[in-house]
Amino acid sequence: MIYLDNAATTRPSDGALARAKKYLTDCFYNPSALYHGGAEAARLLSEARAYLTAQAADPARFSLVFTSCGTESDNQAIFSAARRGNAVTTQGEHAAIYESYKELKNRGVEPRFAPLHADGSVDEDALLAMVDERTALVSVIHVSNETGAVNDIVRLARLVKQKNPRTVFMSDGVQAFGKIAVRLTKDIDLYSISAHKIGGLKGTGALLRRRDYTALAPFLHGGGQESGLRSGTENVFGIACFYYAAQEKFASLEGDGARIAALREELWALLDKQVFRRLSPADGSPYILTVSAGGRRGETLQRMLWDRGVAVGTGSACNSKKPHSRVLQACGWGGGVLDGVLRVSFCPSNTSEDVQFAAQAMNEAAHAFGGN
Amino acid sequence: MIYLDNAATTRPSDGALARAKKYLTDCFYNPSALYHGGAEAARLLSEARAYLTAQAADPARFSLVFTSCGTESDNQAIFSAARRGNAVTTQGEHAAIYESYKELKNRGVEPRFAPLHADGSVDEDALLAMVDERTALVSVIHVSNETGAVNDIVRLARLVKQKNPRTVFMSDGVQAFGKIAVRLTKDIDLYSISAHKIGGLKGTGALLRRRDYTALAPFLHGGGQESGLRSGTENVFGIACFYYAAQEKFASLEGDGARIAALREELWALLDKQVFRRLSPADGSPYILTVSAGGRRGETLQRMLWDRGVAVGTGSACNSKKPHSRVLQACGWGGGVLDGVLRVSFCPSNTSEDVQFAAQAMNEAAHAFGGN
Repeated sequence: MIYLDNAATTRPSDGALARAKKYLTDCFYNPSALYHGGAEAARLLSEARAYLTAQAADPARFSLVFTSCGTESDNQAIFSAARRGNAVTTQGEHAAIYESYKELKNRGVEPRFAPLHADGSVDEDALLAMVDERTALVSVIHVSNETGAVNDIVRLARLVKQKNPRTVFMSDGVQAFGKIAVRLTKDIDLYSISAHKIGGLKGTGALLRRRDYTALAPFLHGGGQESGLRSGTENVFGIACFYYAAQEKFASLEGDGARIAALREELWALLDKQVFRRLSPADGSPYILTVSAGGRRGETLQRMLWDRGVAVGTGSACNSKKPHSRVLQACGWGGGVLDGVLRVSFCPSNTSEDVQFAAQAMNEAAHAFGGN
Repeated sequence: MIYLDNAATTRPSDGALARAKKYLTDCFYNPSALYHGGAEAARLLSEARAYLTAQAADPARFSLVFTSCGTESDNQAIFSAARRGNAVTTQGEHAAIYESYKELKNRGVEPRFAPLHADGSVDEDALLAMVDERTALVSVIHVSNETGAVNDIVRLARLVKQKNPRTVFMSDGVQAFGKIAVRLTKDIDLYSISAHKIGGLKGTGALLRRRDYTALAPFLHGGGQESGLRSGTENVFGIACFYYAAQEKFASLEGDGARIAALREELWALLDKQVFRRLSPADGSPYILTVSAGGRRGETLQRMLWDRGVAVGTGSACNSKKPHSRVLQACGWGGGVLDGVLRVSFCPSNTSEDVQFAAQAMNEAAHAFGGN
């Protein structure tokens, strides 16, 4: 199986699993236990925390709370920061942000959704125009999980703070961390990341927090783990896998990015342009190429491709029960294009052979489809 | 190392890990993905859900939401059910319940804490007296994580509903599920369980819900997984481990319980009664024996025991940063007793040899302590 649905989830790294195994066997202890074994498990958490923080930010200025997933990180950030007034985000957010913003309405906070450009990036001027003196929170996805478009969160955060210094700025970095260079600035308060998109396990995420932003509230109440910000026994094995998988990714982040960008373009070059339209921008994340085989149903194409030995997505897996992608609709695409969406998403171990095989399978499946 | 801190966390079952491994390798897919691999991962979730539900309740009447831990299950239940009026619980709850109840005050709901008997079980009359027409929620821990005392939640739920049929009744079953027989009745609306206390992994829990209790609100908003009740990519590997570990536990639940109860009594019989006082009841969970070596510091004893090759707890690991156990204080114990608390907690693989070794180590450590 040629797996090209890495934006949905990745195959856990064998190397990370092997290194983390001791936390299932020799060192399975509860990190809160005061004896040596517990302290050893707690030490792993500290090491992982320091390492992961340093990959995205200056550890003197940022710290990190481990959570159970990117969705939890997003929920904790939003419901902590947006308690009154209004909260601004984009129409291009992952469901974890988008649905949480919709929930804000039930809690007396007005959600505002900024429009997108055709490539999935936010219309910056429109977003900034929505920020006013009552804006409690602005949230902008770093890399679009649907098109790979990259928002310039550093610039946006600066402009938001210029307009309202009290506004909290957060970003969902789930498709960015471990894939493109991330360097958080003093204008960014919160940044959510996830393990299973970069070779770690499902069930592990984290929320990076600017140390001076002290208003983050606990989302889970209980034993007071994670400095009181996330109660519940820590998922030590999952955190170890996150740590080790990230080490693998960050060791060759730049080289991998350049190589994968070339593969993405190779795939695009091989696709039949009579059938496929490109929805992803050229300057987006190297790891995502979203295309549409106009008129054909993406879901059916996806199953045909699976039978040919290729796994690809059809937009966000988290939204797979809805017929059309909400985000691609917001990009301005109509029914014909929206029907036929396929999202090809890479990981560093993909090769030119994978891409050639996938391109041929995609062309064949599209041609076989209903005689088109 | 003779590990007798199984109420804090358990060593993951090798058998469960081996069976679950395919969800890290061959079937690592996102269960929301619509191709065959995703469907296979989704099928595991259904199987695990059906199996786990059936071990505690009639699956026609109860369903189950997977969460990231018992703490999340408790938080979701409480903040969903207690939105106005008052909410009643006991002074013997785990921090996940207790701290969430304290948080209710900030949200305009009055928390009420019923007193305990000396063994850690709730004073039922006092609890029932706190329930009135404005009581939104009653939560009673099933098995005390500090003493092993078992509350009769079936009877309490019936009496609560007689007094106020609109009151939601929930129970934290984390120390009960997979250890003692659990059979939920129509009067119990919600019941939280956890994987890592029965040979599964940290980072996996669940919330059992009576199907007719439809008011449970989502706690995490996003992609709509778990029928909309718990968004976030499902922790497939963790859930598989939970499922397989539970199968091992439930295959011999009754026999294990009888054998472990005998070990617990063997340990108690071997302890020096000049030093140790028993805080756990005779009719509590077989898996927990809490004692106090009055006057000596439990934390120091715990480290001395670790050096002798025995791991035991000092009360709830989740509260290990506080000097004294809040729950044992509520049982009426004073400073001298509270200082010297050791919690010995078993798992089915413990043997008589383990217990003999541990008893000797505990007696020696207590005698070595400060010349006592």
